[in-house]
Parts: sequence; structure tokens; C-alpha cells
Amino acid sequence: MKYPKGTVNICNNTKNNTVFSNRGMSLEKDINSTNKYYSDNSIAFIYKKPTPIKILEFDRKTVTIKKAVFEAPSTTDYNGLYRGRYIDFEAKETDSKEGFPLINIHKHQINHIRNIVKCGGIAFLIIRLNSYSKTFVLEGNVFIDYIDNNLCKYVPVELFNNKGHEIMEKYAPRLDYLKIIDKIYGGILDE
Amino acid sequence: MKYPKGTVNICNNTKNNTVFSNRGMSLEKDINSTNKYYSDNSIAFIYKKPTPIKILEFDRKTVTIKKAVFEAPSTTDYNGLYRGRYIDFEAKETDSKEGFPLINIHKHQINHIRNIVKCGGIAFLIIRLNSYSKTFVLEGNVFIDYIDNNLCKYVPVELFNNKGHEIMEKYAPRLDYLKIIDKIYGGILDE
Repeated sequence: MKYPKGTVNICNNTKNNTVFSNRGMSLEKDINSTNKYYSDNSIAFIYKKPTPIKILEFDRKTVTIKKAVFEAPSTTDYNGLYRGRYIDFEAKETDSKEGFPLINIHKHQINHIRNIVKCGGIAFLIIRLNSYSKTFVLEGNVFIDYIDNNLCKYVPVELFNNKGHEIMEKYAPRLDYLKIIDKIYGGILDE
Repeated sequence: MKYPKGTVNICNNTKNNTVFSNRGMSLEKDINSTNKYYSDNSIAFIYKKPTPIKILEFDRKTVTIKKAVFEAPSTTDYNGLYRGRYIDFEAKETDSKEGFPLINIHKHQINHIRNIVKCGGIAFLIIRLNSYSKTFVLEGNVFIDYIDNNLCKYVPVELFNNKGHEIMEKYAPRLDYLKIIDKIYGGILDE
């Protein structure tokens, strides 16, 4: 899947709406369809958590939310079960050529990944670098090691190339990231 | 903690508001404070999922939801990580004297519990029977076995007494349900 390069303001773009309006959502769609494939085939049960909201006005008569705002998530977007183990990941895509901008992930989400790694869960990131048309799994411990030891605003492209695991796209499942998880964590998954 | 017996309409009760307004939420509060104790002490990382909503009107300028309704959850309320394993449960309280009314749990939630049990996850219910001031862990497979083999509208009190595991309340953590999980699943947790 190839996207035009460069930064595009998705909201204000009306010209090539079909292409650009899909950009921010394409990784999420690919992961959701992959997760559906996994659950339909009883391979894994991994779901996206709903975005938390803060309700400001609620009408009890009609059981309708009249006003609400989004809240910053305190954990990652996806979690679930695979081969008896706890799986937890955040998925992001970026147009940046430098790598994955850390401004795109909240501090408490980083802390959550740190906790999951520390306590024996399988935590990772799925990052799509649109400028390179590549999607990577980056292990939670590699990610944490990097940001703990570098003053940086990005996880650089080099880290993905050297220590990431590229997910090759295919028809079904679209983005078979559990194949990578098998490769990395095979040992503990067999316990 | 003792509650007055009998069925009470929570919404319309204004007389003893302090007591009654806490009833529907007390189990949730107890579990949330227990989960906070677990994460503060790096024992487990278990969170309540936000209730899914369907946004009907959204103001992009102010990034505010103007109209939304709740959607039926397709999975259980709580999931997370404990000793490397995937933990998943639904928590409900009831005033019924007969047991836990199955009308209180959605079919797709039952199906989700079935899937988690089948694929090696640790799935269970935490049920508080207000009429008896008791809170039980009921293992997912015991729950599924019962509803598959009985035409019933309730999980009867007898099943909780015979095959459930009562959680004794204490100060901190308020509702130490992982102690029960250790007892039931200790074998696989040590793998």
C-alpha cells in the first residue's frame, strides 16, 4: 500500500478526500480486520479498547449523553489473549521520515508498557512508517531501553530497521503480527 | 458491609439516599480500589474497560461530543495481566435472593467468556449477592457448564455455595480476588 509522501492536513483536505481521509485510520482498520480474523479462527482474542470519555451532561429520560469530551487513555489501545498469555500493544502510524515522534504517545501509556514488560506480559508497539510504506513490531523492552537511554523526540528509523520486526502485509490476515510474536516470544508461549 | 434486604428502586429512592445510591456502584468501587492496590504494588495490571459509546453528533471545532448513546459491550468489563497470564472477568451485583439473573449478562459477553476459557485464558465472574452480603468468584468453565446444561433464568445461589469461591472483604486490598485465583489456577500460574 503506497501513500503520497509529505505532511497533509487531513481535516482541511477536500480535494483527494478518498485517499487522505483513510490515512489516519488505515493501520487501525488493518489491525481490526486482523484481530477479527484471529477471533473468527479462535487463534487469539484481542480487542481495541473504547476511547475513554468524560460525560459532562447526561439525559436520564432518554438515556442519552448530551455533552462529553475525550479523555487521554491511561493504557494502550489493544489487549487480549494469545496462547494463554497476556498481549498488550499500542498502534500508531506516522508520516515522519525521522521515525516515530514520541509526542504521539502519552507518558502514562509508556509507563503502562513498562509495567507490562516488568510483570511478564507481552507488550509491544505496532508502528507504521507511511513514508517508507513499512509496518514494524517493536518489542516493549527495546522501546523502553531506547527512551531510557536517549534524550530524543523520536524513535529513529534506524532502530526500527535494526531491532524492529517488519510485518509483511498479505490478504488474510491483513497484518499477521502474531507470526512475529511467535518468533520473538516462542519460548515463553510454549510454557 | 450489610445492606437492607429486599428490592429497592435505586433511582426513585430519596429517603436513605446515602445508603441506596451507593448500592449499584459499590462492587465496582471495591474492584477498582483493589485493582489500584494491585497496580500500585506491581502485583497485577487489571483495568476496567471504558463503556463503548456510539457518537451521533460531534463538534470538530470544540472537539466535543454533542450527542451519544451507550452501546452494549461485546466483551467483559475487566481484563489484564497477572503473573504473565491473561485475566478476564465480568463483575455484577444483584439484590435477587434466587441467585444471579442471567438477564444481567449479554449473550456476546457469555460467548466471550466461552472463548477465553477455550483458549487458555483465566476467565471468571465476580458476583455480589446483596441479599446475602456475600461476594463470589465463579470460574468461567463452571458458569459455562451450568448454563449449557440447564434451562434457567438464574445462576442459583446453590451453585455459588457449592462451586463458587467466597471473597472475604478486608481493608486493603478491599476484595482480594487474586488470592482465590492463586488457589484455583495456581498450577498454570507457576508455569
